[in-house]
Amino acid sequence: MKNFVNIDDVDDYKSLLKEVMDLKIKTLAHKEIGLNKTLGLIFFNSSLRTRLSTVKAAKMLGMETISMNFDSEGWKLEFEEKTIMSKNSAEHVKEAAKVISTYCDVIGIRAFAGLKNKIEDERETILNSFLKYGSVPIVNMESSCAHPLQSLADAATIEENKKHLRPKVVLSWAPHPKSLPHAVANSFVRMCKKNKYNLVITNPKGYDLDPKITQGVEILNDQEKAFKNADFVYAKNWSSYSNYGKVLTKSAKWMINKNKMKLTNNAKFMHCLPVRRNVVVEDNVLDSKNSLVIEQANNRTYAAMAVLKKILQNEG
Amino acid sequence: MKNFVNIDDVDDYKSLLKEVMDLKIKTLAHKEIGLNKTLGLIFFNSSLRTRLSTVKAAKMLGMETISMNFDSEGWKLEFEEKTIMSKNSAEHVKEAAKVISTYCDVIGIRAFAGLKNKIEDERETILNSFLKYGSVPIVNMESSCAHPLQSLADAATIEENKKHLRPKVVLSWAPHPKSLPHAVANSFVRMCKKNKYNLVITNPKGYDLDPKITQGVEILNDQEKAFKNADFVYAKNWSSYSNYGKVLTKSAKWMINKNKMKLTNNAKFMHCLPVRRNVVVEDNVLDSKNSLVIEQANNRTYAAMAVLKKILQNEG
Amino acid sequence: MKNFVNIDDVDDYKSLLKEVMDLKIKTLAHKEIGLNKTLGLIFFNSSLRTRLSTVKAAKMLGMETISMNFDSEGWKLEFEEKTIMSKNSAEHVKEAAKVISTYCDVIGIRAFAGLKNKIEDERETILNSFLKYGSVPIVNMESSCAHPLQSLADAATIEENKKHLRPKVVLSWAPHPKSLPHAVANSFVRMCKKNKYNLVITNPKGYDLDPKITQGVEILNDQEKAFKNADFVYAKNWSSYSNYGKVLTKSAKWMINKNKMKLTNNAKFMHCLPVRRNVVVEDNVLDSKNSLVIEQANNRTYAAMAVLKKILQNEG
Repeated sequence: MKNFVNIDDVDDYKSLLKEVMDLKIKTLAHKEIGLNKTLGLIFFNSSLRTRLSTVKAAKMLGMETISMNFDSEGWKLEFEEKTIMSKNSAEHVKEAAKVISTYCDVIGIRAFAGLKNKIEDERETILNSFLKYGSVPIVNMESSCAHPLQSLADAATIEENKKHLRPKVVLSWAPHPKSLPHAVANSFVRMCKKNKYNLVITNPKGYDLDPKITQGVEILNDQEKAFKNADFVYAKNWSSYSNYGKVLTKSAKWMINKNKMKLTNNAKFMHCLPVRRNVVVEDNVLDSKNSLVIEQANNRTYAAMAVLKKILQNEG
Repeated sequence: MKNFVNIDDVDDYKSLLKEVMDLKIKTLAHKEIGLNKTLGLIFFNSSLRTRLSTVKAAKMLGMETISMNFDSEGWKLEFEEKTIMSKNSAEHVKEAAKVISTYCDVIGIRAFAGLKNKIEDERETILNSFLKYGSVPIVNMESSCAHPLQSLADAATIEENKKHLRPKVVLSWAPHPKSLPHAVANSFVRMCKKNKYNLVITNPKGYDLDPKITQGVEILNDQEKAFKNADFVYAKNWSSYSNYGKVLTKSAKWMINKNKMKLTNNAKFMHCLPVRRNVVVEDNVLDSKNSLVIEQANNRTYAAMAVLKKILQNEG
Repeated sequence: MKNFVNIDDVDDYKSLLKEVMDLKIKTLAHKEIGLNKTLGLIFFNSSLRTRLSTVKAAKMLGMETISMNFDSEGWKLEFEEKTIMSKNSAEHVKEAAKVISTYCDVIGIRAFAGLKNKIEDERETILNSFLKYGSVPIVNMESSCAHPLQSLADAATIEENKKHLRPKVVLSWAPHPKSLPHAVANSFVRMCKKNKYNLVITNPKGYDLDPKITQGVEILNDQEKAFKNADFVYAKNWSSYSNYGKVLTKSAKWMINKNKMKLTNNAKFMHCLPVRRNVVVEDNVLDSKNSLVIEQANNRTYAAMAVLKKILQNEG
């Protein structure tokens, strides 16, 4: 694997997913692979799971890690080409990406969507600048439009818990007080397609995800109908895509609760975390035996390990 | 040892203290104990000594460490049960503690008292939430009401310097411009009791510590009287406990100075640091040969090592 | 080597420079030298290259590292002697330096010039306080007036690229929107003198560097004249030294561009980074084959390794 930027970068997703499961069992079997290699983790945004699980993954492969909160610890970056840098930006990403590439063997980048301008967000300027100017493999630790490490952990969690070959997976929009990015939902949809799950998306009108991504997937505005016979319910808020970045409703009617879960085929509940209790989902669902949210978080370590291992071995 | 949250968690304090002394001599004798184990250090407050000494301790035992300034690098946590999380908090400590437990084999928590509300502070919400929801051992790196790692280092420092079995130890309140927590003083008192030192506390009226902790200890409002024949003077400011969190006096009369030290039995001077020079204590005491403050800080490493070792070995 | 604070601390600069070159080839040949040793990196200012390259260097020598952003993660330090610490500073550097020395075997310090008060900046209070009170070797990671790690990397870069024994090196002032320190320029001048390069400095009137440092070096106010036959052009902005810290001009006439580079002997272009594109230097120079800026940054790793190795081995 050259980079891990989007699910579509992966030639053989099945083999990558198998690697995740294998590493979960034999976590310490590959401590020599990363010896004398350094992973740089560059954060432009907050992070708990990604920060800890990716560092943990690297160490379990014998790698050194250097984490950096870029905005507070480094210099404000410029991303425009040919600009006269007489304002606030002290360093161009051209130099930053090239320089970090001299110190790190792999670079992880976290850079969220701004949600002000769809075209700008879809340009994935930060991530793509590191891809363009950096000279080492790049791992996406959540960009404007994609969070493939999360989806890989989600896939592993579904594989561990599914009861038949093609489970019915419902991706359900849920309410949230703030405007949130589409990255997790986008990558989840792509992953479900890759794995040929029986995916149904349910969201209020005006909240359809990017149609290029959801193409071929059933989208229902009736949440209860969507939940019928679901094997997995994956809750996630996202802001409007068509009315870009806007919060059109915060209606608690869309919150996941016990009654709705009763409509399912005793479905497992999933969420990428952090989750707002009793806004996105009720306590009694999150705290039920059917909740997989902690195991999803746990699987982030093995997802990151699998990606780093494939990159270090330059495989698949 | 399951957790290290308060001195009373320790079954055999003598054996733990002996471990501290042993590790100071044979610092590198146990580099295999922590191999492939990860210590997560979660900071809700500033830290110098704890940050460096605990990381150092972990590394000397072969552990990996991941430090995180929770508020700035992660998500704002919710601690209330059954709340509707529609405000500022993005993640509940329930998830945070469970998730961090999947990445770390031991979790250290630093969360100071707010000093606004005694009941809330004594609830030790952050620390106890990690204890309740986390699934790995928890180390207290200073909570609202306790700083047992500091006291363990203090105990080692007294043991190294005492000239008879039951030295007279004076815990003296000293002035400070700000409202400070009781954690260090509380744990120091508990430790002196455990070690059966001849403890006397001296503080101005209105500054008595929690009577549940000081029960059976002589408390004098006459500092000079208290200093007589002291073998150790431990200076520390704390805010009022009865008039909770208030600064009742900043009078320089309570500052530790050379004249007061002359009343003692050539006492050693101790302070947990950071210390405000010429407010808490005069330069000529802090810079004298009798000052043990740097050795106390040094012993923090071996205190943390001893605790981590006992936890990793699940001993005493 | 006891400390690495200024170039003049180095007895045998040639041997140190040779060490840099050797380590670049045999990067992993000395992984045992730093075993069980800890490097503390104390940052009072932003850092990208220094942060990453110095950590990388330490790890390649087998050392552990602990990085700390002092102001945000620790306590506000007091530097004055005999002061009554009743204001904002919570800890005196006396204690901080002594305490950090108990946890770290080597301490790196980054503390920029304030550029308000020349005498204060030249006192190098932070760095010198750590030298005075610390008990372990100190490495300057850029202080008010010196950046010897950068100059060591610059020297290695020149050595790698020079075509004759005593190349003509031009240090050229270049425009910048903000007031910048003299540290990089000062150390570059000292290094060129050590290495007996044919150094010419060019800057606008009012921008002469400290005459004690530039003594014996030709200073031209005519940039184009200076560039003639140059083998290396090192661009750098600095604020006025005589009119201390002031920005006297931001004139684009002093920007390095292609036409000026044509006056040289096909000179290599150098800059310590971060660099403001099209303010300090035009894109077409920075992006040309003659630009060495990324290699300078890369050589920072081996410069830091050489310094740490000499310190750990207590050599030269």
